[in-house]
Amino acid sequence: MEENQSRTNYSDKPLRCIVKLGGAAITCKNELEKINQENLGIVSKQLRQAMMMGGSSNSTSASVKKVLGLDWSKRAGGGDSQISINPDEFGDQSELDLSKFIIVHGAGSFGHFQASRSGVHKGGLHHPLVKAGFVATRISVTSLNLEIVRALAREGIPSVGMSPFAAGWSTCERNISAADTSQVAKSIDSGFVPVLHGDAVYDDSQDCTILSGDVIIRHLAEVLKPGYVVFLTDVLGVYDRPPTDSNAVLLREIAVDEDGNWSIVAVENMNKQVEITVAAHDTTGGMITKITEAALIAKFGIDVYIVKAATDHSFRALNGEIRGDIPDDWLGTVIRSQRARAVL
Amino acid sequence: MEENQSRTNYSDKPLRCIVKLGGAAITCKNELEKINQENLGIVSKQLRQAMMMGGSSNSTSASVKKVLGLDWSKRAGGGDSQISINPDEFGDQSELDLSKFIIVHGAGSFGHFQASRSGVHKGGLHHPLVKAGFVATRISVTSLNLEIVRALAREGIPSVGMSPFAAGWSTCERNISAADTSQVAKSIDSGFVPVLHGDAVYDDSQDCTILSGDVIIRHLAEVLKPGYVVFLTDVLGVYDRPPTDSNAVLLREIAVDEDGNWSIVAVENMNKQVEITVAAHDTTGGMITKITEAALIAKFGIDVYIVKAATDHSFRALNGEIRGDIPDDWLGTVIRSQRARAVL
Repeated sequence: MEENQSRTNYSDKPLRCIVKLGGAAITCKNELEKINQENLGIVSKQLRQAMMMGGSSNSTSASVKKVLGLDWSKRAGGGDSQISINPDEFGDQSELDLSKFIIVHGAGSFGHFQASRSGVHKGGLHHPLVKAGFVATRISVTSLNLEIVRALAREGIPSVGMSPFAAGWSTCERNISAADTSQVAKSIDSGFVPVLHGDAVYDDSQDCTILSGDVIIRHLAEVLKPGYVVFLTDVLGVYDRPPTDSNAVLLREIAVDEDGNWSIVAVENMNKQVEITVAAHDTTGGMITKITEAALIAKFGIDVYIVKAATDHSFRALNGEIRGDIPDDWLGTVIRSQRARAVL
Repeated sequence: MEENQSRTNYSDKPLRCIVKLGGAAITCKNELEKINQENLGIVSKQLRQAMMMGGSSNSTSASVKKVLGLDWSKRAGGGDSQISINPDEFGDQSELDLSKFIIVHGAGSFGHFQASRSGVHKGGLHHPLVKAGFVATRISVTSLNLEIVRALAREGIPSVGMSPFAAGWSTCERNISAADTSQVAKSIDSGFVPVLHGDAVYDDSQDCTILSGDVIIRHLAEVLKPGYVVFLTDVLGVYDRPPTDSNAVLLREIAVDEDGNWSIVAVENMNKQVEITVAAHDTTGGMITKITEAALIAKFGIDVYIVKAATDHSFRALNGEIRGDIPDDWLGTVIRSQRARAVL
């Protein structure tokens, strides 16, 4: 009876957060199909902690609990030996009762080579090279998806991989035209953490294209209304120019109006806010695309935090600590609707 | 213009065959998560040849062509070096223009351990062990799916992995209740070979269960009407008792009536057929379940061939050579409707 009640309550809980694991943050950008294991490990731990804390500040119980790994595969167990699973350890209901998260990852050094060599994003499946590239791209991105699902599962996160292609998501003129989110919604209501990814998909106008993780997140955010969205990346946030430029300034906050237009909020001192317009450079790994998608999410009234993965700043963002006033010692970029700013 | 015409013709072609890669045939049954690479390699080659022959007997052009691999991942290339892709090699339209196949595989030594230790098939996602097992099972079966997609792609088959769970397939009282086949249909019409698999799925009555590859095939056959269905397994076919018994007799043909009842067709000599009823034993890896599903497919008027993988017999079955009279020198079991038998 208690169990049934707990299930009902669980399914009533709102979606807390959608997280983008940026390709640059979890793979080694310059090496073909190499995962940044160190970052992925830290990110997985931070995600678990944030999910267990459920938005409260009581982190003690989360950190002292033994992690029950959910990847029972041979490789995870080290060597060829049978995995030893003790069913009794899984008796504690609260162990897997985490707050609701959805994870979407990019491709990084997976998929990009295959897609760009074949031109999958430009379409034309009747060209054998494009068809071949479609197959090769999907193999590469789904192998990354599997590795990320496994890394999360090793940290006790009940992750389930869900390829947009397999789910029948498609585009028209490269905008989403079909994207049934019911299986994603059912999965979070069942206590799982769906893990989606940028994928090769069918396109009504040009046969096929690449559907990016950022576009997937925008769609999920619009339909499933998370409390906030976090983009984990390999730089501290959005700069006014390429971060390799020594004069680059980290933009603390970007305000989005009701039409989806965005402007940078510059804080000259703590008491005075001045709005300026600076052209953010697009040489930082498609930052303009990211800001555009983030602005469309913020337009729905949902905060977006762009932050460096595997840092204390990313943990605070994942844990929802940036939802009100932006803490002085937090480094990252908040993209927020002017409406949401007004009520703070 | 020619290209457009070729595309239209392609999408008009009927679905030729659905193939089940039995878990016992492509994995090492007694060793956790070990693929039978030798069998999988031969099966992939046979599949490619059968697809290229398109049902005709002109096999020469198929066998002499250079295979253009479609797995451009690092591991497939051997070592860490960048894969070398020559786009010019993909200029030949006919290279990837194969007849339409769908592949469904079982789990074998992948997934079974995780599912049975946690009881995923019995349902109850509010039990932490079941929820954990659901995650672990999906990791195991999707890792097998990826390896099979890669093996097929290395042989030049444009394979695309499609997890039933991600596609939103679900059951009620362990029978399929939702299974949208539109993405599978679109994929074969686009010239791809969908690769599905037995998977952990949601069940309306008991939260979750295991959806077997055999049930998936029956559903696909009912909706997409293939010319014939081939079950590749690790024994020559269906026996009247466990094949380890030295008196076991290979059943050549099983006839299915309009109500789905099946009976064994015994051939005493070439001119006289006598119907007898023998209880096939279920100790041969769920053979009764397999025959039941196969009988339901045959009821639709679709021949089912149960045959040992990676043999000359499996190649002939994949190539459709058993569709008429059963050749004397072919070893395997044909499951065929009495209606289909009558018109031969």
